[in-house]
Amino acid sequence: MKIDLGDVAALARGCAVLGTGGGGDVRTGALAARRAIEEYGAVPLVRPRDLAADALIVPLSGIGAPTVSHEMIHGEEEPRRIAEEIERIFGRPPDVVMSSEIGGANGVAPVAWAAQLGLPLLDADGMGRAFPEVQMVSMYVAGLPADLVIMADVAGNVVTIRPVDGLWSERLARAVCVAAGSHALMADYVLTAGRARGALIEGTVSRALAVGRATEGPAPLRALRDELGAVQLISGKLTDVERRTTGGFVRGTATIEGTGDDRGRRLTLELQNENLVAVEDGRVRAMVPDLITVVDTETAAAIQTEALRYGQRVTVLAWPCDPLWRTPEGLRTAGPRAFGYDLDYVPVEELTK
Amino acid sequence: MKIDLGDVAALARGCAVLGTGGGGDVRTGALAARRAIEEYGAVPLVRPRDLAADALIVPLSGIGAPTVSHEMIHGEEEPRRIAEEIERIFGRPPDVVMSSEIGGANGVAPVAWAAQLGLPLLDADGMGRAFPEVQMVSMYVAGLPADLVIMADVAGNVVTIRPVDGLWSERLARAVCVAAGSHALMADYVLTAGRARGALIEGTVSRALAVGRATEGPAPLRALRDELGAVQLISGKLTDVERRTTGGFVRGTATIEGTGDDRGRRLTLELQNENLVAVEDGRVRAMVPDLITVVDTETAAAIQTEALRYGQRVTVLAWPCDPLWRTPEGLRTAGPRAFGYDLDYVPVEELTK
Repeated sequence: MKIDLGDVAALARGCAVLGTGGGGDVRTGALAARRAIEEYGAVPLVRPRDLAADALIVPLSGIGAPTVSHEMIHGEEEPRRIAEEIERIFGRPPDVVMSSEIGGANGVAPVAWAAQLGLPLLDADGMGRAFPEVQMVSMYVAGLPADLVIMADVAGNVVTIRPVDGLWSERLARAVCVAAGSHALMADYVLTAGRARGALIEGTVSRALAVGRATEGPAPLRALRDELGAVQLISGKLTDVERRTTGGFVRGTATIEGTGDDRGRRLTLELQNENLVAVEDGRVRAMVPDLITVVDTETAAAIQTEALRYGQRVTVLAWPCDPLWRTPEGLRTAGPRAFGYDLDYVPVEELTK
Repeated sequence: MKIDLGDVAALARGCAVLGTGGGGDVRTGALAARRAIEEYGAVPLVRPRDLAADALIVPLSGIGAPTVSHEMIHGEEEPRRIAEEIERIFGRPPDVVMSSEIGGANGVAPVAWAAQLGLPLLDADGMGRAFPEVQMVSMYVAGLPADLVIMADVAGNVVTIRPVDGLWSERLARAVCVAAGSHALMADYVLTAGRARGALIEGTVSRALAVGRATEGPAPLRALRDELGAVQLISGKLTDVERRTTGGFVRGTATIEGTGDDRGRRLTLELQNENLVAVEDGRVRAMVPDLITVVDTETAAAIQTEALRYGQRVTVLAWPCDPLWRTPEGLRTAGPRAFGYDLDYVPVEELTK
């Protein structure tokens, strides 16, 4: 199949849902995707199993402060410069583009990058959701060495990092990003399809498309819940949002008071770019790496952390993350303690049964 | 000729003089040089004209906050990692090591780096003195593109920057350096001997050695003055030092009141890591890029900006910079206005005749 103009809106809606409140504004990515498809044509979507073992995958993502990313349309030069650097290093250009992060803008924008490079897009990503740090990707959890990061900024600079590990990769990439004006395009874990086996979260572009399409019918919230296999944590009104932005990260809490069937209940979300923990009456009902998304009760459109406002009528959905995140290494990388919560991970299915 | 154990002290003294108060503590570089010569043997010193046109020169320097550099002995892994990255990029290892900056620790430490790599040292550098910023090198002034910077830190990370220009090179390298713990080894302007023609300041290692040796006799100050062809701006006592360290840069002023023949005179130095401007009675007597160095009146040992103390008996010497720095591009890059002084450059010979 191909991703064409008519698919972009659904893909963007789906990526917003999988972004669990973070991952940047999908509208920026959608605009870039539409423009690139108009200029270069529809983008073939290929499955990992369709690739030859030596096919070179370039996982791409925008890195930077969300507030800056919102205002920027990604240029065409950055993907090209990264592809050139890959050719210099590997002796051949990449064969396929992958989204490093399906949740948020980084799930949609790779359509534009693939179109600009004349490459297909891989139906997979490195998170199955959104996460804030460079090392929080399936390739890292699978134990692949974080041995190469390539960054390109709008000024035309290209920086290649050979970090000793994923944590250094995050630290150095972040510093380069800030120096480059708080926004850059990044290739992380460039790898062959053979090496990628078991280290990607597969089918996530198709899933985002399906999730986005689910909300096109007459009962969008129910359809979305069914498509995700999600538990509805609460439906009600946003009564309190406390949020501060420090160092490019949004932190805070949001409180929802139940209405209708949920009257008398009250759910609090802990936010760090993404919605990370949901608490009701002192009891945790869902926690990272499981997915928690706040949607508009009527339209089922996902609401980003930064767009949460007092009085909104919202529903909070939670559903299981990819099994990779539930492994010991997955939880070490992106479990509740990786975000500073003194909580042992319990799957959302158990917390809500 | 070769640089052997017996040469290190003189080289270090000479590099301190050429450092014009900056360039880091030469003791760190001297210690590294001695250790490396003990382990790997003396280091051949070769002239640019002795190199084949395609010989690959790797200009190296430590980058970072002086306070951190003082406490660190450079590791052996960093030069090796940079050489490996050069081999990856150029398809062959470097042939000769060059000091990017002869003034200060970066003039001495390349002896160690060359010894560790088993390579000769080039009798040339990119400054003929010390300067604080990455783009303030002769290769930049000569118009060579600042198209590649390779950095290696103690943790083992290697970062390659392909900047759009020298100013971006400074900005990105500085950010990586800070993220890497405020110290890294850097290769800047890796180039062939053929391309380097006219873009290096030649003979500066020999010159530093000669300058250092000049101070070994019975009348060190006079011998140093003669060797440098320097004007003695004042001899006296340090009566006021005002200095603050911000963002890894030392800024301030130092005032010397004349004694002996200079009684009644008073000279003020403007400091920014290096001694940049010397003023007497509201009249500038020497300014950057000409060299201004404060030496101990008795031993003629150079005193670093950070080691200036009330009561020291000092003599201030000034002498002409390399002609390259007096070209329009040289002055744009490292003239008084590049450091924020609203002064038109006038050569020290004219200011003091």
